[in-house]
Amino acid sequence: MSLLSIGSVAYDIIELPGKEPVKVLGGSATWFCTAASLFSSPNLVAVVGNDFANEDINFLRERKIGLDGLERANGSTFHWHGRYHEDLISRDSLRTDLGVFADFVPKVPDAWHSPDVLFLGNIKPDLQALVLRQVGDVKFVGLDTIELWIETCREDFEALLPSVDLLFVNDDEVRQISLENNVLVAAKKVLSMGAKAVVVKRGEHGAILVSPDGLALFPGFPVENIVDPTGAGDSFAGGTLAYLDLIQDFGFEAVKRALVVGTVMGSFCVQGFGPRALAEVKMTDFRQRVAKYLDFVDFNGKQLLTDLNF
Amino acid sequence: MSLLSIGSVAYDIIELPGKEPVKVLGGSATWFCTAASLFSSPNLVAVVGNDFANEDINFLRERKIGLDGLERANGSTFHWHGRYHEDLISRDSLRTDLGVFADFVPKVPDAWHSPDVLFLGNIKPDLQALVLRQVGDVKFVGLDTIELWIETCREDFEALLPSVDLLFVNDDEVRQISLENNVLVAAKKVLSMGAKAVVVKRGEHGAILVSPDGLALFPGFPVENIVDPTGAGDSFAGGTLAYLDLIQDFGFEAVKRALVVGTVMGSFCVQGFGPRALAEVKMTDFRQRVAKYLDFVDFNGKQLLTDLNF
Repeated sequence: MSLLSIGSVAYDIIELPGKEPVKVLGGSATWFCTAASLFSSPNLVAVVGNDFANEDINFLRERKIGLDGLERANGSTFHWHGRYHEDLISRDSLRTDLGVFADFVPKVPDAWHSPDVLFLGNIKPDLQALVLRQVGDVKFVGLDTIELWIETCREDFEALLPSVDLLFVNDDEVRQISLENNVLVAAKKVLSMGAKAVVVKRGEHGAILVSPDGLALFPGFPVENIVDPTGAGDSFAGGTLAYLDLIQDFGFEAVKRALVVGTVMGSFCVQGFGPRALAEVKMTDFRQRVAKYLDFVDFNGKQLLTDLNF
Repeated sequence: MSLLSIGSVAYDIIELPGKEPVKVLGGSATWFCTAASLFSSPNLVAVVGNDFANEDINFLRERKIGLDGLERANGSTFHWHGRYHEDLISRDSLRTDLGVFADFVPKVPDAWHSPDVLFLGNIKPDLQALVLRQVGDVKFVGLDTIELWIETCREDFEALLPSVDLLFVNDDEVRQISLENNVLVAAKKVLSMGAKAVVVKRGEHGAILVSPDGLALFPGFPVENIVDPTGAGDSFAGGTLAYLDLIQDFGFEAVKRALVVGTVMGSFCVQGFGPRALAEVKMTDFRQRVAKYLDFVDFNGKQLLTDLNF
C-alpha cells in the first residue's frame, strides 16, 4: 500500500463573498494528501520556499504525509489569490505568483519509486511525464490537468494519456481535449486517445465515470452549509485514490466505489475553510455520510423492474 | 388507477441550432400525457382553438389519452416560438401567443372527479386551485409552476402548497419560492410552507428529491444524441406520476422509484423531436434503460462500508 502525489503546495488568499481576504495553506497536492491521509499514508513531491511556515510542515507531518520529497528552495512559496462570487461556485483568479514553483523539477526519492498508486496533480505535462519515467512501474495512475496545459502543451499532454488509468477533468476540459461538445461523446473520445477511464467532474452536480467497462453516475452529495469550495477537486481525487490504495483493487467496480469516497470527501471539503478543517473530519462521520449517500441512490431496482414488467 | 392532467396543449415553433424553424405539437399537458401514456391512461383537461388539427386529436386518441376534457374554443391554439442556443440547454422565447388559452377556465368532467393522481401543470395558480376544488379527493397531487406565477401570484401559489404531494420546480424556482440561495435549504423551506415533498429539476444534471422522509438523488441519464430538450420537464413529471398511478403506492420509496422512471422518460424525450417521437419509445427499450440507470448508480455499498471499517 503506497500512494504518491505530485503537485503544488501553496499559500492561498481567499476572498469569500462579503468577507475579508484570508491567507490559508493551499495547493493541489496539499488538498490531495490531506484528503488521502484519512485512509492512506500519501507521499508528497512538491516544492516550497523559505517563507513556508514550520507549523504548516508540522500539520502535514502530523497527518502522516511523507515529506521526504518536499523540497525547500530559495524564494517564495507559490501564492494564489482568488475571489469567489456570491454563488460560491464561480471565482476570479486575482493573482498567481508561481515563486519557487516556476522552476520546480520534481525529484521522486528512490524509496518512493514503484508506488501502487500515483497521482499526477496539475503541473506541466512534461513534468508529469518526467515523474512517470522516474517512478517506474505503477499499478494505477490518476492524472489531473487544466485548460492552460491542454491549450499550450497539447502534444505533451496527449502523449501522457496512454499511461493514465483515471483522468480527472471537468466539462470544459474534456470538451477541450476531445473537441467534442457532448460530454459523453467527449469522454469516449478521450478513451480512444488512450486514457483507460475518465471521470468528468461537474462541481455540485457530481461526476460521471466513463470507461470501456461502462458508465457510472455520482450525483453530488448536497450540503446546506457551503463555506469554501477551494480544494474540492483535489479532495475528490485524494479520497478516490486513497481508497484504491487501501483496497488494492483497481477494477471497474472498485473505481466506482472509490469515486463514491471521492464524492463524499469533496462534500466535506466545501463545508470547511482550508485543509486543516478537512483534516478534522472523523472516520465515523465519513462512514455515516457514505452510508447516507448510498441510501440516497438506492432505488430498490428489483421492485422497479418488476413493476415495469406489468 | 386514474391519472388526470391539466395544462396546455399548444403548437410550438422550435428553432434548433443551425436549423430552420419547425412547427410541432407541444404544450405541457401534451408532453405529460404522451409520457404518461406509456404506463397509464391519462385524462386531459385543456383547451385548443379552431386551428387544432384532426391528426393531432387522432395522435392523442391513439395514445389512449382521455379527451372528454379537451375543450375546443373559438380562436387559435396557444403558440410558442423558441430558439435554442448552441448548447441545446439555454433558449430564448421569441413569441408566446396565448390564443384561446388566455381565457381558459378548466372544467373537469364529472366522470373524472376523485382521480387517484392529479397533475396540475403550469397554469395560473388560481386555476390550479379551481381544479383542486372541482375534483374533490385525490390520492396524490403533483404540481408544476413557473417563475412568472411565483412572482405575480405568490399568495395564490403559496395557498396551494399544503395540497401538493410533490412539487416540481427547478433551481431558480425553488430559490424564488423560498428566498433561500442554497438549493437544499430552499427545498426544506418549501416543505415548511406545506408541500409534502419537493423535486428540484436540474436539467441534464438530474434531480433531487427532498421530503421529510429523506433525500434522494437522481443523476441525469447521459445521452450522446440530444435532439431537442423541449418537453423534458413535463415528460419527467408524466413518467413519474404515471408510475405512481400504475403501482398505487404513494410512499417515499415508491416516489423514489417513480422519479427514476421520470428521469429515464426525460432522457428519451430529449433524444427526439416532438411528442410523436417520444410516443415511439418501446416498453422493452424503456425497461432496458431503467436497468442501465440502476446499474450506473449501483456501488456495492455493502463492500464499500466494509472496506471503510478497516
